[in-house]
Amino acid sequence: MKLQAGYLFPEISRRIRSFGAENPDAKIISLGIGDVTQPLAPAIVEAMKKAVVDMGSEAAFRGYGPEQGYDFLINAIIENDFNSRNIDLDRSEVFISDGAKCDTGNIQEIFGLNNVIAVTDPVYPVYVDTNVMAGRTGQANKHGQYSKIIYMPCTAENNFIPELPLRLPVGRQERGIDIIYLCFPNNPTGAVATKEILSRWVNFARDKRAIILFDAAYEAFITDPKIPHSIYEVEGAKEVAIEFRSFSKTAGFTGIRCAFTIVPKQLQAYTEDGRAVKVNSLWHRRQCTKFNGASYISQAGAAAVYTTEGKKQCRQIIDIYMANAAVIRELLTRLGYDVYGGVNAPYIWMKTPDGLSSWDFFDHLLQKANVVGTPGSGFGPSGEGYLRLSAFAKPDDVKEAMQRIAHSI
Amino acid sequence: MKLQAGYLFPEISRRIRSFGAENPDAKIISLGIGDVTQPLAPAIVEAMKKAVVDMGSEAAFRGYGPEQGYDFLINAIIENDFNSRNIDLDRSEVFISDGAKCDTGNIQEIFGLNNVIAVTDPVYPVYVDTNVMAGRTGQANKHGQYSKIIYMPCTAENNFIPELPLRLPVGRQERGIDIIYLCFPNNPTGAVATKEILSRWVNFARDKRAIILFDAAYEAFITDPKIPHSIYEVEGAKEVAIEFRSFSKTAGFTGIRCAFTIVPKQLQAYTEDGRAVKVNSLWHRRQCTKFNGASYISQAGAAAVYTTEGKKQCRQIIDIYMANAAVIRELLTRLGYDVYGGVNAPYIWMKTPDGLSSWDFFDHLLQKANVVGTPGSGFGPSGEGYLRLSAFAKPDDVKEAMQRIAHSI
Repeated sequence: MKLQAGYLFPEISRRIRSFGAENPDAKIISLGIGDVTQPLAPAIVEAMKKAVVDMGSEAAFRGYGPEQGYDFLINAIIENDFNSRNIDLDRSEVFISDGAKCDTGNIQEIFGLNNVIAVTDPVYPVYVDTNVMAGRTGQANKHGQYSKIIYMPCTAENNFIPELPLRLPVGRQERGIDIIYLCFPNNPTGAVATKEILSRWVNFARDKRAIILFDAAYEAFITDPKIPHSIYEVEGAKEVAIEFRSFSKTAGFTGIRCAFTIVPKQLQAYTEDGRAVKVNSLWHRRQCTKFNGASYISQAGAAAVYTTEGKKQCRQIIDIYMANAAVIRELLTRLGYDVYGGVNAPYIWMKTPDGLSSWDFFDHLLQKANVVGTPGSGFGPSGEGYLRLSAFAKPDDVKEAMQRIAHSI
Repeated sequence: MKLQAGYLFPEISRRIRSFGAENPDAKIISLGIGDVTQPLAPAIVEAMKKAVVDMGSEAAFRGYGPEQGYDFLINAIIENDFNSRNIDLDRSEVFISDGAKCDTGNIQEIFGLNNVIAVTDPVYPVYVDTNVMAGRTGQANKHGQYSKIIYMPCTAENNFIPELPLRLPVGRQERGIDIIYLCFPNNPTGAVATKEILSRWVNFARDKRAIILFDAAYEAFITDPKIPHSIYEVEGAKEVAIEFRSFSKTAGFTGIRCAFTIVPKQLQAYTEDGRAVKVNSLWHRRQCTKFNGASYISQAGAAAVYTTEGKKQCRQIIDIYMANAAVIRELLTRLGYDVYGGVNAPYIWMKTPDGLSSWDFFDHLLQKANVVGTPGSGFGPSGEGYLRLSAFAKPDDVKEAMQRIAHSI
């Protein structure tokens, strides 16, 4: 009941409806939502068709799967996503699930309510809202920020990377920060973190006995070979970090539902009286008790992502989205806007012109170009003066949207 | 960390392994696990194949679905499962999910930690464990029962139906019971509740401002036309009850993952200072924040359960399991055992002979007949002296298991 009303997307819908009612002939193009638009790769379709047929056959039918996922998928993940980057993982460290939103939302359940969390501002709202729901925060202020949460501002001034040492509220010590949510490539800013930046955070967490919740749902969109795809590329990260991955954007699985979370066996949390507890066992027990495994068909489809054909086809689809991102970046840059992201991430984060507020610029684009973005202020007060554009759209729509924006200036 | 180790099924596995090691030629038949064995109905396979093909096509691809599920499935559920029994439901009262275990485990998250819950003994462990994990209980006693939970004993003496008025610990008033978990047809006892019994509970909840969490995952196994399939067949239930349903056992979906929960709009909870709050909105917000919808393919398969062919084929599969239940019941009854359940439920709950403990009788069956059941004491202290046998098995295995039991006496 403490939660603020889900304001952002309902308000966007309201303004679109209202504009559409007054302008029934306008063909509105949405670059507002982070949902994939390309159909599934053929290799995935074939694998899922076979899985469906198996489930109808006496010999190959499967009932409950392992709560943590099938070995055929876990093995493919370890080999392709981690061993290829010189990261060793044990099968018991990989937890297959039905979505990274669920995992990043559920993970806080295994930690006590007295833990203090730190999040970036702007932030993916699920990190905050799930902690509010659990009772780990106080009330929201007029900016929609909750007491007992540490917000780390990310703006152009700090390259959208949260700073260390943290700027803390009066009376709060860094010692008292227990859980840090980081998301790279970032939603909404599109920022990425170098190995040096991640090392600094890993060292901070080791020093303070904090835990990093690292959301890498967009790692497949990294194009710069120097940027790490996994936080475990950083030494010592297995002692302090949980990593979240997803097939949603990598392979178009937003409607199929499959993701996974890495909880290293070395990772320890500490009770209030200082006793070390293995986080892997806590998460295992949580998943066994409140989850019953991802669909066998979804897991069969996810495994096909790692086949030779699957990799090639998924890469082609990601290239389509990243070509969209390049089109958006180039046009906006040419028009003189300050543009961030869109190189190693499917999101473009642009500064609004002339000091316009996020919502005023949203209205301007809707009315003059019939293009929908997402107001940055909806992700937190440090997002004020920014707008997020998504590269998840049909290429023709993106090109038309950019032409319209060019003509609306 | 307060949770007892998951003792029951690991210990069963240990004893089976140990017996198997000493008796490598023994062909062990398991009637211990509640998992389906028949392949999916052809109508479901066809629907899911089409859904997979759609997801690979430009025109029919779907990304994120509605968090609460697709209307095509919600409409089929309302018409077939509820309207057919004179129950009206609004679409906003049906929440599609990936499993009844998840829903019955997650539902407690929307209620404050000071609420007192009541469960039956024996009980499906998920109800208890999720409350322990949330911090709603004290420590476990030597019987594995947690303080601050009200346990309602269910034995042959009360026909496995929890009694009203409740037998409460000293100092505890019925007034202080907020949430009551009921499961009919019951896992593990196979008991069912008549309309009169459910009415008594609904009236109790209305009187005490309590909420009933009604797990109806096994309703498809009811054969007696007088037994209600939904708690909403009882007048006033929409004011006090949430109902959980599943395709897992009804349609063999344990590996496919699809279920649903009904939260009526009339249903209100009360804050500590007596303010009424709509539970439907709380659950809607919880699901939108921590869940991203069931797989489109699973939902397409679930909708096929309600087609003419799907209904006929699923019924044939349920009939196979219920024929198994009849075989088990008849043989055990003929042998002179006290046998319960198995008529309106896929579980047979038998009294152990000669006052044997649940585990001693488990060992006896394993060693003399190479048949595995589930010790009743694993579901709670009132399950001591009982054994659960599951009808989810191949008919030939069930017949052979019964012959072996007959010869082992």
